[in-house]
Amino acid sequence: MPAIAFGRFDDSFSLSSIKAYIAEFISTLLFVFAGVGSAMAYAKLTSDAALDPPGQVAVAVCHGLALFVAVSIAANISGGHVNPAFTFGLAVDGQITVLTGIFYWIAQLIGSTVACYLLSFVTGGLAVPIHGVAAGVGAIQGVVMETIITFALVYTVYATACDPKKGLLGTIAPLAIGLLWEPTFWLPAHSRVDQ
Amino acid sequence: MPAIAFGRFDDSFSLSSIKAYIAEFISTLLFVFAGVGSAMAYAKLTSDAALDPPGQVAVAVCHGLALFVAVSIAANISGGHVNPAFTFGLAVDGQITVLTGIFYWIAQLIGSTVACYLLSFVTGGLAVPIHGVAAGVGAIQGVVMETIITFALVYTVYATACDPKKGLLGTIAPLAIGLLWEPTFWLPAHSRVDQ
Amino acid sequence: MPAIAFGRFDDSFSLSSIKAYIAEFISTLLFVFAGVGSAMAYAKLTSDAALDPPGQVAVAVCHGLALFVAVSIAANISGGHVNPAFTFGLAVDGQITVLTGIFYWIAQLIGSTVACYLLSFVTGGLAVPIHGVAAGVGAIQGVVMETIITFALVYTVYATACDPKKGLLGTIAPLAIGLLWEPTFWLPAHSRVDQ
Amino acid sequence: MPAIAFGRFDDSFSLSSIKAYIAEFISTLLFVFAGVGSAMAYAKLTSDAALDPPGQVAVAVCHGLALFVAVSIAANISGGHVNPAFTFGLAVDGQITVLTGIFYWIAQLIGSTVACYLLSFVTGGLAVPIHGVAAGVGAIQGVVMETIITFALVYTVYATACDPKKGLLGTIAPLAIGLLWEPTFWLPAHSRVDQ
Repeated sequence: MPAIAFGRFDDSFSLSSIKAYIAEFISTLLFVFAGVGSAMAYAKLTSDAALDPPGQVAVAVCHGLALFVAVSIAANISGGHVNPAFTFGLAVDGQITVLTGIFYWIAQLIGSTVACYLLSFVTGGLAVPIHGVAAGVGAIQGVVMETIITFALVYTVYATACDPKKGLLGTIAPLAIGLLWEPTFWLPAHSRVDQ
Repeated sequence: MPAIAFGRFDDSFSLSSIKAYIAEFISTLLFVFAGVGSAMAYAKLTSDAALDPPGQVAVAVCHGLALFVAVSIAANISGGHVNPAFTFGLAVDGQITVLTGIFYWIAQLIGSTVACYLLSFVTGGLAVPIHGVAAGVGAIQGVVMETIITFALVYTVYATACDPKKGLLGTIAPLAIGLLWEPTFWLPAHSRVDQ
Repeated sequence: MPAIAFGRFDDSFSLSSIKAYIAEFISTLLFVFAGVGSAMAYAKLTSDAALDPPGQVAVAVCHGLALFVAVSIAANISGGHVNPAFTFGLAVDGQITVLTGIFYWIAQLIGSTVACYLLSFVTGGLAVPIHGVAAGVGAIQGVVMETIITFALVYTVYATACDPKKGLLGTIAPLAIGLLWEPTFWLPAHSRVDQ
Repeated sequence: MPAIAFGRFDDSFSLSSIKAYIAEFISTLLFVFAGVGSAMAYAKLTSDAALDPPGQVAVAVCHGLALFVAVSIAANISGGHVNPAFTFGLAVDGQITVLTGIFYWIAQLIGSTVACYLLSFVTGGLAVPIHGVAAGVGAIQGVVMETIITFALVYTVYATACDPKKGLLGTIAPLAIGLLWEPTFWLPAHSRVDQ
């Protein structure tokens, strides 16, 4: 296992690194725009009703398919992280340098922020939903839930996309990573709500 | 990057070009028939109710899966454009000539028109829905929304189907292109309606 | 294009032919069991209500995914026809002999019949639904609708599974064939009902 | 066909065997956590209502996608069994030893049990649903239903993942295995209920 490496600035500013940041920016922007946008579309269609099961399916499927596409379109350029948690994992694992990982994070955070501003603009100023803990759920339970879901995501990425022996499985890696989002988006109905 | 080329008539009337026009005609016909048809089926099942979230999921999934199939069946013949916006992009990029692109457009427009007439016939004359701007949404917001969605589509096509370094990702390119339609069909609930 | 061939009995009773008939029998049985069974499950869950949009999605998705699996599991043994219309097309095209095609049909029809008896048994004698023309739809319109849908299916099979130049597209052929069922199952809401 | 083999302890405790048990433990844990968790999320969202068709779709899709991912992430390590019925089949077929099969079962059962405890914890003690026979359905009918469904699963695994002549079909094997779950989860509405 390679050690954690801080990295060098000239490496993090190579042409391929900058292409990777732009790819992460675009993929995160599109994922958040489509995912959060589907929750806002549901709110508009139902006059701000709480998510019932069909709505939960709708928003979960939009997130899953959008993540599948976001990972696919960045896979060959930046590796298709999209999620900062996975960038963190790869930096700890030494597969990218800490410095490059920080620029990935910046690209992802800017992409996500721009997506929310765009959503606010195109909807004429509708509120952008944020996550919170559901009624009757404690902080520790929320942490355990998020830990399991994030473990599942990072494990899936490693087993299908990063494994050097992955073989043909690599072909459907973006599908596995994206579609995993659908059931994991359902789960937080226990412990997480959009407000 | 190759320059924009107008092209020559003998090239645009080669046997493989004519096969490509027919493939675009068929794929666009089937996509519009299935996609718009699902919206009409919903209208008939609900006595012309507005799309609620389950209906929105139903129509979005039909569009997404139909586009996936439409792109797949034309991929090896015409490249599987289906959408005139993508043909436009490829012509600007010089990957097809302007003249061939115009014939692609003609094939797509005829396919779409025939699909609507067929839908009108098989349903005994039900109205074919058209798109409009939703209540409370301005023209600029609609343009921004459509720009983001079209950018996402063309970017996805380039990253998964056209990239010469795409590798195994090319296998799932039609899935990425088609399934992207599902969340993007949800989004316009903010800004677009079928009337 | 090869000519239509009647075929010889010894060829149609080779070991690989008999394996193919068994594969068609099993795949058709499982497809009909899962597809028709989903319609019966809906009827039971709703006390025989008519299919509303969420029910239509549910039954269409079950048909689509079951066909995807049915085609996949028979693809390397019998070619994964499942649908007699496709066997007919291949026999007309001379890719299988007429005699072998007839045995394919017999296997498919027995598989479908056994599936319905099994469904009747496991549900304690619930009625197995049959197709009919919807209210307000004439015979010609029904024929046109079925023609378009069958054309789409056979065209998809040829373009993704039979084309010798299909390349990587062959990998997702069963997905394209199966998932096409989802939007085409929605369409007949115009012209076809389960009674 | 190889004979059934009991196997030797040193083989069942090799490093690659232990990795396989851990992979089965993780995949089964994630599958049960996501699948059963979706049923609990539905119960919480609807104040313990019975599953209506949209709820049935939601829970079936979560099971199907979670199984797809669970099989994918274990495929290259343990073969991605997840289901003890398939481990049983492979042991009868002599492809794994009986001893290794028993450790697979232990790993699967512990994974499933841990998943249920985690679900109980993160939901603040909600009841974990169990399967039962639906009203008006006899024991024999339930056995027939489960037999058909299990046959379909094991047949699909053999035809798409184990067949040495599977070729490109192996790429989509986890999709076929996982998505088969969606229609088969619908079917037991005839004969099986979550209580």
